[in-house]
Amino acid sequence: MAPGHETISFLSDYGIVDEFVGVVKSVIRSMAPAVQVIDITHEIAPHDLRAGALALVRAVQYLAPGVVLAVVDPGVGTERRAIAVEVGESGEGVFVGPDNGLLASAVSMCGGAQRAVSLTNAEFHLPGPAATFDGRDIFAPVAAHLCNGVDLAELGDLIDPISLRPGILPLSRDEDGTIIGEVLWVDRFGNIQLNVDPDEIEAWGDRVSVRWGQSEVRTARRARTYAELKPGEVGLVTDSYGLLSLAFDRLSASDQLRLRAGDGVTLAPPV
Amino acid sequence: MAPGHETISFLSDYGIVDEFVGVVKSVIRSMAPAVQVIDITHEIAPHDLRAGALALVRAVQYLAPGVVLAVVDPGVGTERRAIAVEVGESGEGVFVGPDNGLLASAVSMCGGAQRAVSLTNAEFHLPGPAATFDGRDIFAPVAAHLCNGVDLAELGDLIDPISLRPGILPLSRDEDGTIIGEVLWVDRFGNIQLNVDPDEIEAWGDRVSVRWGQSEVRTARRARTYAELKPGEVGLVTDSYGLLSLAFDRLSASDQLRLRAGDGVTLAPPV
Amino acid sequence: MAPGHETISFLSDYGIVDEFVGVVKSVIRSMAPAVQVIDITHEIAPHDLRAGALALVRAVQYLAPGVVLAVVDPGVGTERRAIAVEVGESGEGVFVGPDNGLLASAVSMCGGAQRAVSLTNAEFHLPGPAATFDGRDIFAPVAAHLCNGVDLAELGDLIDPISLRPGILPLSRDEDGTIIGEVLWVDRFGNIQLNVDPDEIEAWGDRVSVRWGQSEVRTARRARTYAELKPGEVGLVTDSYGLLSLAFDRLSASDQLRLRAGDGVTLAPPV
Repeated sequence: MAPGHETISFLSDYGIVDEFVGVVKSVIRSMAPAVQVIDITHEIAPHDLRAGALALVRAVQYLAPGVVLAVVDPGVGTERRAIAVEVGESGEGVFVGPDNGLLASAVSMCGGAQRAVSLTNAEFHLPGPAATFDGRDIFAPVAAHLCNGVDLAELGDLIDPISLRPGILPLSRDEDGTIIGEVLWVDRFGNIQLNVDPDEIEAWGDRVSVRWGQSEVRTARRARTYAELKPGEVGLVTDSYGLLSLAFDRLSASDQLRLRAGDGVTLAPPV
Repeated sequence: MAPGHETISFLSDYGIVDEFVGVVKSVIRSMAPAVQVIDITHEIAPHDLRAGALALVRAVQYLAPGVVLAVVDPGVGTERRAIAVEVGESGEGVFVGPDNGLLASAVSMCGGAQRAVSLTNAEFHLPGPAATFDGRDIFAPVAAHLCNGVDLAELGDLIDPISLRPGILPLSRDEDGTIIGEVLWVDRFGNIQLNVDPDEIEAWGDRVSVRWGQSEVRTARRARTYAELKPGEVGLVTDSYGLLSLAFDRLSASDQLRLRAGDGVTLAPPV
Repeated sequence: MAPGHETISFLSDYGIVDEFVGVVKSVIRSMAPAVQVIDITHEIAPHDLRAGALALVRAVQYLAPGVVLAVVDPGVGTERRAIAVEVGESGEGVFVGPDNGLLASAVSMCGGAQRAVSLTNAEFHLPGPAATFDGRDIFAPVAAHLCNGVDLAELGDLIDPISLRPGILPLSRDEDGTIIGEVLWVDRFGNIQLNVDPDEIEAWGDRVSVRWGQSEVRTARRARTYAELKPGEVGLVTDSYGLLSLAFDRLSASDQLRLRAGDGVTLAPPV
């Protein structure tokens, strides 16, 4: 037996209206009663792998040690592999979910995979009437067994971590002295996170030209907090994950600028 | 004292915007600190007994042993009884909620009621200023007391289980070789669960004629997973609860076919 | 070391779509693994201090002993203070959050502040790349440290409770024999809570004239439960917090009467 785990951090696109999340937690509670499940979010848009992967990356460095259970799985029941991936020098963390790119970037942020396994050993699954709810029938029981000290290698065939489906996080690039970036995420307050590091524009000073869409242009001011922005002023604020975000004071930047996740944004020195 | 319980599985129509769920859990935490509450869902539409009963039935076989607290209660404060119902040969599970049909089908799935009690003993309730929040003032403290080992019979007057309000789950029927069914539930992904067992149409082979509304007809193909459906193709997939569901690959069947919970659907052999 | 706490009751305007709540809980889980977090609600509208303060007041008397973590914080990162406030004769409860009026009314309901501290000791914070997520970087670790037995005085500079930002709950008033009140809250079921105590209209008997807007007038009937109202009849029901609420049987009073939180309402004896 491995030493086991006491926490399962759980992210999915199951939503909270249906009973899916409750059923997954009930399966875990029945099999590993002492384990605590921490919900990261279950409101990833249905099948939105990119949003799920990004939320996982934002959260991962803050998660409690243990198992990360992540399910956004449009290919449920098909030949896409169900996997568990061990990270950390002594395997102190394990990611459990589908092998479709959802886990990859978070695994990288934890130093990469130490061992990986395809969850082919049905002895550690629940028998189910169908192939449509692997969260309940495969991932939850596997996560519980890992918490109970079952070793990764017992869960199925060890696979080469190099064979895991890679992540899909978009990178910004420098082009003729401008930064071509993208909206990674719009948060509840309407702040627009870009895939741009503050260092990339450090030399430009206080004002930055922001361009998007057909011909939209605004000048944004670098700021440390939302409240120091004037009413209606566009800010470029280093957000809580260390990336640049477009923001207003007490207004939704997404509503004001009509920018959504996935939209392209170009940053340039002020004209 | 009875042996007690360690888990309360909690379903309601309280939603998560107001503090109702948090207050109920706080009451439980104050009275039975070691108990874990597992949320099944709180997003049952307000007063929708049918949806609450169905969610409970879908979840019940997966719930951890212990108390099931379920509150969808349009008649709160009236003469409808507040009840606790013991199930299982040695009373290893107890349902707590209003006697309005919400619990009945789930109780049946657990083998029926062993003992039932009307929660008339106010000694086990919280004093409250009103008759409008029995979840907080009656059901939560009763659930906590049950976890602490209070015997069912102390909670009020034992009642004949036969007097409990029956459930209201619609059954499908065979008519001239077609199956007259109904939409039980549309899940977050838009999959349409029918009250039809795959066995009922097993003899028909791979294609099934689906009829609804005034004159809508589509041919659905039996499939094991969503992903094996072609773009735009209607599938009949055995869902994770063992019932037939109308589904598309990565599209909402409910949006595509304009079917909602409660709508009638007829299945027939292909023409 | 102080005796510590076992429960953190958590309210915020973070919503449940983003991973903010999960990250805060993960920080707590990592630092104080034995602590249970009870969610009050996270669906306070963004930056809505009034709604957050009111939800906290409604919930506070039911919360489990321990720490109350409350974050609605439009001024995050600015010079508004981050605070912890001890309540109860022997400091058995501690409120943690921004000093912007959010906590004040709940603190009063607990008998007022015994000690208060400005959270200036960065030794008890997480290092973060930005000033935009104090929930994660300041309030969560402080709450965890308090649970672990760190004394309030270690967390920063003790401040005079009299200097804390006051609350903002609207009071009703008597004017020429009518009660001028306000809608405090519309709950999920559409019930309209007023800031009026039943005692204020006790002398008027069974019928009450309700006026609002330009010239809207309805006669409401006092009732104990929703179900005793006739279809379409307006009720005045003492709600679960002991205040008067406008309600219908199985209909949303807010939809029927087009009243929202903050709207003025006048109650008068029947004409």
